[in-house]
Amino acid sequence: MTKRALISVSNKEGILEFAKELAAMDYEILSTGGTKKMLQENNVPVTAVDEVTKFPEILDGRVKTLNPFIHGGLLGKFDDPSHQAQMNEHGIDPIEIVCVNLYPFVETISKPNCTWEDAIENIDIGGPTMLRSAAKNHQYVTVIVDSNDYAKVLEELQAHGTTTLETRKRLAAKVFRHTAAYDSYISNYLTEEEFPENLTMTYELKQTLRYGENPHQKAAFYQKRLGSDFSLAYATQLHGKELSYNNIQDGNAALQIVKEFDIPAAVAVKHMNPCGVGTGTTIEEAFDKAYEADSTSIFGGIIALNREVDVATAEKLSGIFLEIIIAPSFTEEALAILTQKKNIRLMTINFAQENQDKLKVVSVEGGLLVQEEDAFGFAEADVKVVTDREPTDEEWAALKLGWAVVKHVKSNAIVVSDAQMTLGVGAGQMNRVGSAKIALEQAGVKAKGAALASDAFFPMSDTVETAAAAGITAIIQPGGSIKDQDSIDKANEYGIAMVFTGVRHFKH
Amino acid sequence: MTKRALISVSNKEGILEFAKELAAMDYEILSTGGTKKMLQENNVPVTAVDEVTKFPEILDGRVKTLNPFIHGGLLGKFDDPSHQAQMNEHGIDPIEIVCVNLYPFVETISKPNCTWEDAIENIDIGGPTMLRSAAKNHQYVTVIVDSNDYAKVLEELQAHGTTTLETRKRLAAKVFRHTAAYDSYISNYLTEEEFPENLTMTYELKQTLRYGENPHQKAAFYQKRLGSDFSLAYATQLHGKELSYNNIQDGNAALQIVKEFDIPAAVAVKHMNPCGVGTGTTIEEAFDKAYEADSTSIFGGIIALNREVDVATAEKLSGIFLEIIIAPSFTEEALAILTQKKNIRLMTINFAQENQDKLKVVSVEGGLLVQEEDAFGFAEADVKVVTDREPTDEEWAALKLGWAVVKHVKSNAIVVSDAQMTLGVGAGQMNRVGSAKIALEQAGVKAKGAALASDAFFPMSDTVETAAAAGITAIIQPGGSIKDQDSIDKANEYGIAMVFTGVRHFKH
Repeated sequence: MTKRALISVSNKEGILEFAKELAAMDYEILSTGGTKKMLQENNVPVTAVDEVTKFPEILDGRVKTLNPFIHGGLLGKFDDPSHQAQMNEHGIDPIEIVCVNLYPFVETISKPNCTWEDAIENIDIGGPTMLRSAAKNHQYVTVIVDSNDYAKVLEELQAHGTTTLETRKRLAAKVFRHTAAYDSYISNYLTEEEFPENLTMTYELKQTLRYGENPHQKAAFYQKRLGSDFSLAYATQLHGKELSYNNIQDGNAALQIVKEFDIPAAVAVKHMNPCGVGTGTTIEEAFDKAYEADSTSIFGGIIALNREVDVATAEKLSGIFLEIIIAPSFTEEALAILTQKKNIRLMTINFAQENQDKLKVVSVEGGLLVQEEDAFGFAEADVKVVTDREPTDEEWAALKLGWAVVKHVKSNAIVVSDAQMTLGVGAGQMNRVGSAKIALEQAGVKAKGAALASDAFFPMSDTVETAAAAGITAIIQPGGSIKDQDSIDKANEYGIAMVFTGVRHFKH
Repeated sequence: MTKRALISVSNKEGILEFAKELAAMDYEILSTGGTKKMLQENNVPVTAVDEVTKFPEILDGRVKTLNPFIHGGLLGKFDDPSHQAQMNEHGIDPIEIVCVNLYPFVETISKPNCTWEDAIENIDIGGPTMLRSAAKNHQYVTVIVDSNDYAKVLEELQAHGTTTLETRKRLAAKVFRHTAAYDSYISNYLTEEEFPENLTMTYELKQTLRYGENPHQKAAFYQKRLGSDFSLAYATQLHGKELSYNNIQDGNAALQIVKEFDIPAAVAVKHMNPCGVGTGTTIEEAFDKAYEADSTSIFGGIIALNREVDVATAEKLSGIFLEIIIAPSFTEEALAILTQKKNIRLMTINFAQENQDKLKVVSVEGGLLVQEEDAFGFAEADVKVVTDREPTDEEWAALKLGWAVVKHVKSNAIVVSDAQMTLGVGAGQMNRVGSAKIALEQAGVKAKGAALASDAFFPMSDTVETAAAAGITAIIQPGGSIKDQDSIDKANEYGIAMVFTGVRHFKH
């Protein structure tokens, strides 16, 4: 009996060669629509699907292959006598190979002018059904959804006259990954609830990583389709070896911080916390400040800059050991300097884009926490001066800088800053005054006249006291403690200007 | 013309009442298999699907509804003259309502004795196809996959003779969420690669949360099916208001740490870092030590204990402000004491279970980082004494405790400990010596004769020097720095016993 292959693809890449090889092995090719036309025009003999189904294509192509003459051929067990008897009785022939890909739903909804009707019409029904039938019956049927698999299948057919069960199983798994992703995109497009009863997320492999946070943990980096370009997943790497897991976490953290600034800014990150943030009228000045902020911790760190890297900045950057430099661009001369360093990674990224990935997820054992990203900034804060003294202009600038940075420091977080740069960063402590002490100690004498920002309110007045002792003259914090008045009184006592924002910025 | 409803459900809950109401509104009910039988036995008039398809059910039920007489009825636009003409020509009547749920794939593979054949046979083909056809055509067709929606649909039909477009759209979105999840489970079952080209993960809503890390961020907690019980998603809450986002992160962190210990242990967590870890021969003693470890930071913290909470421990726990207590169980008297506190949350969890959720994910902008959890412990470490002096038995015990804890502290992490408890925890600093200083300062005089554990190697000998100055006599760290010998020399100089593990434990 002639073997049959059903081919119906919207992505026609490589399909003609594949079909020709199948025809050369005496496969009867079943097809429909554009694929059929294309094969016929290229002299590949084709049987129309409606000859098999004995039923015409109807409803603008919505119903073509949803037919027992197709699905009986895909779902019958080739070695089950009762299945074979039923197929014979009804004149259903088996289909050994299915090669189908789907209406381009994601591509359609990605178009800026996509209408609801366009989207709905691009929900494929017949295609996923054929793929799923064939994949369920992979014991017998070879199913191909990815043109990259044509060669492997041909190779096995040419060598053995049949594919191996191992290959068929692998292809079947790929089909269900494909249909799961396809329906995930459709459901996300149609769903209006932010937190529906079922959350199915899909990502595409960007790269497997050498390892995860530690060498004994395997890891991979997946990218989201339909996201923004302002992402390391879509950055361009100009130089250096590939990013590690920790590089990606740190680089992502650095990008989120530098994006807080419109003026030239540079951010150095270590272990997902900023160790130095600097701003200036030029990117060189911004880097100088970021370096000055903590010239010890920056060693082996990651730098993100929000302006083109010029020669002057490149020369300075090349003087220290850095893992990665991320910027919107590099001048040619800057690149010539930096690419002399073998071990540095240079990345460019599209700063014009906004974050579009509103929901962030993190695993906990047995589940997933999902939350909106912390999109609030100074503009969204309900800023109130709560002390007798108002901050000076210089203090306001320092408070704003501190507030922009403290949001990105792991809690409990305290940032000491002046109007241009961070002076001390107290991160990740289990009590607030501990973080304050770290930040103030790092700032040292520079704390005199500087500002202090806290990611959450002061439960007691001890942080104000500690700040005052170090010379801090302005404080920004959410407020909201039942003991706020104690902190306000203490600030007034020391002549500190204190501002409440009404907004907390815990980050873990 | 008679309206038609197609009903085919494996979950029969509420279906009889639903069908009766439809019949009472003069719907013709199409059905098949067990649903048909059940409706007929209950005197609901039913038309068999094979009367509609004019084709018998074949291949052990694999092909029943994959037929143009069904899918033409589901996919035809009711107000499109050309569609209507084609349907009339072929004798296809529209189907207004579809009520289908799927073969229980997840339930099947959850059974301990599930065979490959059982799993494959429980991949539903016809059901998802009907659901997807109807959902695509939701402009006209009402599709129900969840018995909770029967009442709403009946209510609208009874009130207006038809459902609203809004409802149909909402139900269609739910269908694609359902099929996406269904195929995600199938693909995960069939996929052998750890990091396939497409990663589609699915979770079920456990609860929406009041907010995320901060009040201006919306959030939800999703649970994973087929996971272990050793998860807050599957814990039992005995008392108190519902968990917050930060509670779940902290509680999860506390559980992962306490699970490191076989002997009675108590762990207090703040901002995802342990502030105190204690062990003992009884759970009371373990708690005493955890409290003593840092009696300031524990305020407002979360406690996990790995033994039943007894009266003595409950009395002590009730004396301090805690957000949550998690334990395998509480004695009745302990519960009577603790439930007097309104604001505390009491949770029990099945400690007998292991983590099964091997891969952990975290969002970065535009993508997802996926890695294996850090499952290595002391047993997996390649432990070598590198100094002249071997640790004493007491020091070995302290080193092991510190090593178990430092793995769970945010990097850079340093833990100072004795054989029973942590004495100082240095977390989340951008340079290692900074973390060491924090841990040693907290330990104070107790650092004399204590052990120091570091999550990563010492890039220079300064940490050994700082440790020695504080009186540390034993150190555990991965080793692997090019300057290891400097650290070893320095340790020998001070008579410190130092152990290398060969394993790093970064955590962010």
